[in-house]
Amino acid sequence: MAAPHPVIAYTSEASWAMIEDKFSPYGKETLAKVIQFLEDEILPAVPVAHAQLPDDPVKRWQTVIPIIDELKAKAKKQGLWNLFLSKQHYPEFGVPLTNLEYGVIAEVLAHAGHMGPEIMNCSAPDTGNMEVLARYGSPEQQQKWLIPLLNGEIRSAFAMTEKNVASSDAKNIRTSIRQEGNEIVINGHKWWISGAGDPRTRLHLVMGKSDPHNKNSYNQQSVVIVPADAPGVKIIRPMKVFGYDDAPEGHCEIIYENVRVPLSNLVLGWGRGFEIIQGRLGPGRIHHCMRSIGIAQAALNLMLQRVTDPGRKTFGKYLHEHGSVVADIPKSRADIEGARLLVLSAALQIDKYKAKGALKEIGIAKFVVPTMALTVVDRAMQAFGAEGVSQDTELARRWAGLRTLRIADGPDAVHIQQVGQRELKRAPELVRKAQDLKRRENALLEKNGLKAHL
Amino acid sequence: MAAPHPVIAYTSEASWAMIEDKFSPYGKETLAKVIQFLEDEILPAVPVAHAQLPDDPVKRWQTVIPIIDELKAKAKKQGLWNLFLSKQHYPEFGVPLTNLEYGVIAEVLAHAGHMGPEIMNCSAPDTGNMEVLARYGSPEQQQKWLIPLLNGEIRSAFAMTEKNVASSDAKNIRTSIRQEGNEIVINGHKWWISGAGDPRTRLHLVMGKSDPHNKNSYNQQSVVIVPADAPGVKIIRPMKVFGYDDAPEGHCEIIYENVRVPLSNLVLGWGRGFEIIQGRLGPGRIHHCMRSIGIAQAALNLMLQRVTDPGRKTFGKYLHEHGSVVADIPKSRADIEGARLLVLSAALQIDKYKAKGALKEIGIAKFVVPTMALTVVDRAMQAFGAEGVSQDTELARRWAGLRTLRIADGPDAVHIQQVGQRELKRAPELVRKAQDLKRRENALLEKNGLKAHL
Amino acid sequence: MAAPHPVIAYTSEASWAMIEDKFSPYGKETLAKVIQFLEDEILPAVPVAHAQLPDDPVKRWQTVIPIIDELKAKAKKQGLWNLFLSKQHYPEFGVPLTNLEYGVIAEVLAHAGHMGPEIMNCSAPDTGNMEVLARYGSPEQQQKWLIPLLNGEIRSAFAMTEKNVASSDAKNIRTSIRQEGNEIVINGHKWWISGAGDPRTRLHLVMGKSDPHNKNSYNQQSVVIVPADAPGVKIIRPMKVFGYDDAPEGHCEIIYENVRVPLSNLVLGWGRGFEIIQGRLGPGRIHHCMRSIGIAQAALNLMLQRVTDPGRKTFGKYLHEHGSVVADIPKSRADIEGARLLVLSAALQIDKYKAKGALKEIGIAKFVVPTMALTVVDRAMQAFGAEGVSQDTELARRWAGLRTLRIADGPDAVHIQQVGQRELKRAPELVRKAQDLKRRENALLEKNGLKAHL
Amino acid sequence: MAAPHPVIAYTSEASWAMIEDKFSPYGKETLAKVIQFLEDEILPAVPVAHAQLPDDPVKRWQTVIPIIDELKAKAKKQGLWNLFLSKQHYPEFGVPLTNLEYGVIAEVLAHAGHMGPEIMNCSAPDTGNMEVLARYGSPEQQQKWLIPLLNGEIRSAFAMTEKNVASSDAKNIRTSIRQEGNEIVINGHKWWISGAGDPRTRLHLVMGKSDPHNKNSYNQQSVVIVPADAPGVKIIRPMKVFGYDDAPEGHCEIIYENVRVPLSNLVLGWGRGFEIIQGRLGPGRIHHCMRSIGIAQAALNLMLQRVTDPGRKTFGKYLHEHGSVVADIPKSRADIEGARLLVLSAALQIDKYKAKGALKEIGIAKFVVPTMALTVVDRAMQAFGAEGVSQDTELARRWAGLRTLRIADGPDAVHIQQVGQRELKRAPELVRKAQDLKRRENALLEKNGLKAHL
Repeated sequence: MAAPHPVIAYTSEASWAMIEDKFSPYGKETLAKVIQFLEDEILPAVPVAHAQLPDDPVKRWQTVIPIIDELKAKAKKQGLWNLFLSKQHYPEFGVPLTNLEYGVIAEVLAHAGHMGPEIMNCSAPDTGNMEVLARYGSPEQQQKWLIPLLNGEIRSAFAMTEKNVASSDAKNIRTSIRQEGNEIVINGHKWWISGAGDPRTRLHLVMGKSDPHNKNSYNQQSVVIVPADAPGVKIIRPMKVFGYDDAPEGHCEIIYENVRVPLSNLVLGWGRGFEIIQGRLGPGRIHHCMRSIGIAQAALNLMLQRVTDPGRKTFGKYLHEHGSVVADIPKSRADIEGARLLVLSAALQIDKYKAKGALKEIGIAKFVVPTMALTVVDRAMQAFGAEGVSQDTELARRWAGLRTLRIADGPDAVHIQQVGQRELKRAPELVRKAQDLKRRENALLEKNGLKAHL
Repeated sequence: MAAPHPVIAYTSEASWAMIEDKFSPYGKETLAKVIQFLEDEILPAVPVAHAQLPDDPVKRWQTVIPIIDELKAKAKKQGLWNLFLSKQHYPEFGVPLTNLEYGVIAEVLAHAGHMGPEIMNCSAPDTGNMEVLARYGSPEQQQKWLIPLLNGEIRSAFAMTEKNVASSDAKNIRTSIRQEGNEIVINGHKWWISGAGDPRTRLHLVMGKSDPHNKNSYNQQSVVIVPADAPGVKIIRPMKVFGYDDAPEGHCEIIYENVRVPLSNLVLGWGRGFEIIQGRLGPGRIHHCMRSIGIAQAALNLMLQRVTDPGRKTFGKYLHEHGSVVADIPKSRADIEGARLLVLSAALQIDKYKAKGALKEIGIAKFVVPTMALTVVDRAMQAFGAEGVSQDTELARRWAGLRTLRIADGPDAVHIQQVGQRELKRAPELVRKAQDLKRRENALLEKNGLKAHL
Repeated sequence: MAAPHPVIAYTSEASWAMIEDKFSPYGKETLAKVIQFLEDEILPAVPVAHAQLPDDPVKRWQTVIPIIDELKAKAKKQGLWNLFLSKQHYPEFGVPLTNLEYGVIAEVLAHAGHMGPEIMNCSAPDTGNMEVLARYGSPEQQQKWLIPLLNGEIRSAFAMTEKNVASSDAKNIRTSIRQEGNEIVINGHKWWISGAGDPRTRLHLVMGKSDPHNKNSYNQQSVVIVPADAPGVKIIRPMKVFGYDDAPEGHCEIIYENVRVPLSNLVLGWGRGFEIIQGRLGPGRIHHCMRSIGIAQAALNLMLQRVTDPGRKTFGKYLHEHGSVVADIPKSRADIEGARLLVLSAALQIDKYKAKGALKEIGIAKFVVPTMALTVVDRAMQAFGAEGVSQDTELARRWAGLRTLRIADGPDAVHIQQVGQRELKRAPELVRKAQDLKRRENALLEKNGLKAHL
Repeated sequence: MAAPHPVIAYTSEASWAMIEDKFSPYGKETLAKVIQFLEDEILPAVPVAHAQLPDDPVKRWQTVIPIIDELKAKAKKQGLWNLFLSKQHYPEFGVPLTNLEYGVIAEVLAHAGHMGPEIMNCSAPDTGNMEVLARYGSPEQQQKWLIPLLNGEIRSAFAMTEKNVASSDAKNIRTSIRQEGNEIVINGHKWWISGAGDPRTRLHLVMGKSDPHNKNSYNQQSVVIVPADAPGVKIIRPMKVFGYDDAPEGHCEIIYENVRVPLSNLVLGWGRGFEIIQGRLGPGRIHHCMRSIGIAQAALNLMLQRVTDPGRKTFGKYLHEHGSVVADIPKSRADIEGARLLVLSAALQIDKYKAKGALKEIGIAKFVVPTMALTVVDRAMQAFGAEGVSQDTELARRWAGLRTLRIADGPDAVHIQQVGQRELKRAPELVRKAQDLKRRENALLEKNGLKAHL
């Protein structure tokens, strides 16, 4: 009998049993290699990376953390690279992994926080940007921007969210993108532009309005490639999340003031911005969800160690012997297991029907998982006491990151609303079947000499 | 391309995609036949069965509902019979279905409430009793009691819970079972004995203490077969659940007063009662959970019809246009999907490792699912208004039934506690890995000229 | 120092300290007398009353329970009578108790379930009907119907809710009320008409549409007094709540078929039905809430006894030593305390500004309290195990009653929505203050040589 | 009719009606003056104070924010000073305000965050330290440390929590305090010492073990005054809460290494440390709770402005027209109202019976309020989207501060446990009454010819 797959230590035997038969041999092998690399190389490097990022409020934005670069080279050499890009959807550039397979990899990598994905060139927002350029980029755009991104030589940003605008409705966007001769002129005020702070970032994909009076409000937007160093690109400040600046990537406030780029920097075509962001959102949301589950699982693992720590007894008992604490553990375990299977089933739907055919499942994952993970991490923080909210564990930082997921790519309420609308579409068929059943019930009642319903 | 399996209309495409490859051709075909029979025969018969049960407080306990008997004969003829009994575990008597396969069948059948399982001879407590007799019964016991049960000619009860005793700890049981010559004498006061009210019930499996002073408290109990009409078996009254008496099966209070049975009625052997109930609980809990999920799904289906009913507008809007209502629908959908996958993964663990190897997964299902289903049914009741708590929908009755599942086979708190204990067993290995990681972190910090941790 | 008031044993010292100074000497004395009567007379009579109600499905609707009649006479003699009717609002008929004072009395009486209020002639729907007749009834109507109601000689029903109609929006009502000569003709199909099953009920207040085409949809309704024995009043069946029929009062389905009453039976005037039901709802909702709090408190008291019962140990521990159980107790205590103060503050607002000036506070109480009480009672049921859902404690029956309060007088969602709308009215003043503050901030920033906000 | 008190705009009419009659004229007047000063002076100064705190990671710990000093002088001049110190309990130093009265002041001041209390010399940990010195300090200690603290000339820290120790059980403390001749020698490792970073801090009250082998584990601890600049006091680093350092006060990790202070710095006496911290905790917890309620109320006020902002429409609707958002508002309002009354009732119990007589009420407030406030602030953050988690509103920072309150002064689980134990003490009397009632029920059943209970 073969040894059990090492992923079981990161997920669970019950989860793995549900999906093992959906993994290709390559998928299983890659997953095992990812775990080996995570344990041998990435996890021990986390404190080094922290220490290599300066505290200085200016220098921390100018730093390429040495050990991350080292490990990127190693990972690339081992073929643990761009694993997010599914060959099925991107035959030219991708790796032969399904979304389901990569989903599990994403969960496992999250045990090292954002370092895991970065080292394997699987970090947002680069992932989504590479997908956009791979699917919609011109050969020239692909040569100039996609190849270096795929090589991990440069990084990128995606500039959509705008200040003082309810951006969860993308039609509200105000940034102006207009043609002047052979150039495109961009003017706008964006914020929360992740990755824009990174010294390696070379391009921003900027979404704006190119045709604000188009009657079809879904055809008003375009996306254009803006070099990070183009004149007029002004990074105002890093936005903070619960006090964290997330340097060096950061989430920046940016003013684009009369930025000019060549016409060839337009992506896909005028008025096709909405189409681009739609295509960008499906698998990425699932990856975020799987990472959130990995973070929750890591928090539960920490919690298990804490509550069994003999040095942490209070009132003569282990922490886990206090009733309400022990209840947090099985509940967290159950929450994680259920959520994992839910997201994996959404990933499978994407593999079968592309993101467009899996919108309900993606939407469910999107509103269920961040709240679940926040709850689990919060329970772990509580078990750690003051240490849990401090810089001495990863819990507080990760909680803060998870909290943004209830807002990013649309707040929970939007996804709840949209899944609700999709679910309501089942009603007419249910009504039809119920009416048919009522007729047959009445026939049977009468046949049995009983009074029919009204 | 093959037509989609009809189970998708009862569960979901995403759930089915996760498990389809785990179904045998026989499993798929049987599931399809079950659905056909459910829709053609069982569902239209539900109101007839209700009408055939008299209101009279005496006669309702003496009734064998005619249409149920008719349909049992039809189902048996079609081979839709004893589907709960897995050939894998009961080669002599079972059908070639896995627990996973039967789990889905149990969910589907629950759309007809308790009638679905009963018509296919898959009702508790008969199911568990048949398992006990198939596994532990002597050839004589099997001939006399198991065969008629398997044939659906008789029914049975399992008498464990005792009045004024905290029965969730089975060691507390007080009923006395002692040998006198060639006979066994039983004295005890039980209640909540499901099925004991049914006129077709011919036997009680009675659990009691045969060796109360045995030092090993798990060896004090025995199980004995008591004919329902043995002298001294006194049915005191039906217990009610939220006002429902659940006639004709019922949940009875019973006094066993000097009941005498032949020695050959002892099951398995003296002192082996604990072993018997342990073996009895695993798959049955999963079946309960799957039925609960079916009930939740049916409630959501009803809710979808209600909130889109044009006759139910309030303040000029459809019910589903009121914000908080529409949120209940996607949340319910998500809750059901996650719980279904969780329980199916537990069923799969049973198929792989028997119940003993799946205790954590079974425990999780046991404490998660009833609460989930109660929440979904409660939301549906709320959408139905006063009608939802009345006799005019099945919602209130089903809610009451689900509520008992948070108590039966051990209250939630016991399962939460036990899953917690099992999860805590992961701690030592996590601590070991964490200590190893700390050493490697320190080495790497030093190698990079940084200060090691304490 | 005076002895502490006996109400502390039913509420809490902390609650009483907040309101004691708002009680008149008469209020305190009456409250003490109510408690004495409750303990001496009502509580011991509860099992007698249960036993005096026949099981027979016909006779139970024809019964006036003897011990309730006995105790009504005693209570009346002691002046513990019609305490709900505040002299402040009904100078001619009322007793000198405020809503706050009666609120506490209602809570205390709820420890005996519905018997408490009934014995002191304070039962719904009579209370609301007496308020309507006291405020809006003609002298003739008061003489004929109000006086016997105030005397406790007859009972009454209020017929508003209609079958297949979303009645939470009262404008949807369809029952036709039209004048024909000197008569009023009523045709309609109502259900959930509480009290209509009681053999003592002599009148129904029926709400219907008298002017369905009136442009002002709030002027289309009228209320008319219908004698319970008028030809055409057809009681179809009792509705059940979960499995309870709540005989003898019941909640009936009724068809009014060409029922004719004299023109003098019109209450207040044509088209004033909406006005009547509006006036009817405020204090009654608060009384329901206070009774719900009493029920929750009684459940917590039962739970405390159960979890300290030495006969209920499991796994060697008292129930209260199991961690999650003990957490249910302080949470329930906290939930009850907070809810009680919230409702009392709403009662105080009614005393100060009438119901119309306390709509936000009443709405908050209405959506907070039933859910709170359901939670507390559910926890107590869980502590009681199977006994908790059965006929052997009052818990399940009371839970079912509380569950209807999330629907009756408008479902939770309606009240949440309406309180939300009222709370939103605070926004403009907050915006005005925020803008003013921003100006002053900027001035101060500039004065300190700092950059002003945008 | 008098104008309504301005506090209504900060709390609610319904809350104020419950407590107005418990306020002295001085209390009402002081509350009005506090509000005036808050609006005129403090609120406009908040952005100035933020701007006056340098970003520089060193300088921010050396800064006395000028505008705070200015406003302290103004507040002191107006007598808005040391309002936390109740004359009733501290006749020599206190102001004539009850805990209830100061509780409302604390709530109102929280609208300006921590600046409100600081400007009126009511900041933790100074407040608790002043209470300790006022109650237990020697005349010399009071002269040297208390008077400057009362004058707002210096600040202070309280050093209890220790690294790697489960400090919620104070008996676990390890810091050594021992006498050597005329000196006391302190050695220990503390962290989370609030206020220790402030350049104005002159003293630490240090709790440690002076008699570790005393059989009575409550007599092992002593408290000693340590000058902040004593040799051996080493501030290691500021602890962060999420990403906030809360400079300049901060929460410091400190090593006391052979710190020597004169014997006269011992507070109250050897072995009386436990007694000192017990006395310190009651009213302070209530003040924290009231501030938390103020923070929740301020968050709700912000949310109301956000959801009615015409610039924030999505999908053509105001935010408040999206269903689930509007539900958050009434729920928050209800949560705040209930919690406020709960805490005020605890404050009233302290006023009547001192903290010792109000432990149950204080414990309830302690575990209910932070979770409630976190929920309300979280809802507001969600309404604000990404801005809500950033530095551009106070919401995220305040959420982080509230989160520590579920840990500080004992984690929730400890308070839930303790309130549970106190509530269980009600059981014996309830059992006695229930047994007595059962006897009287049986007598009455028999008298009515009915069968008595068993």
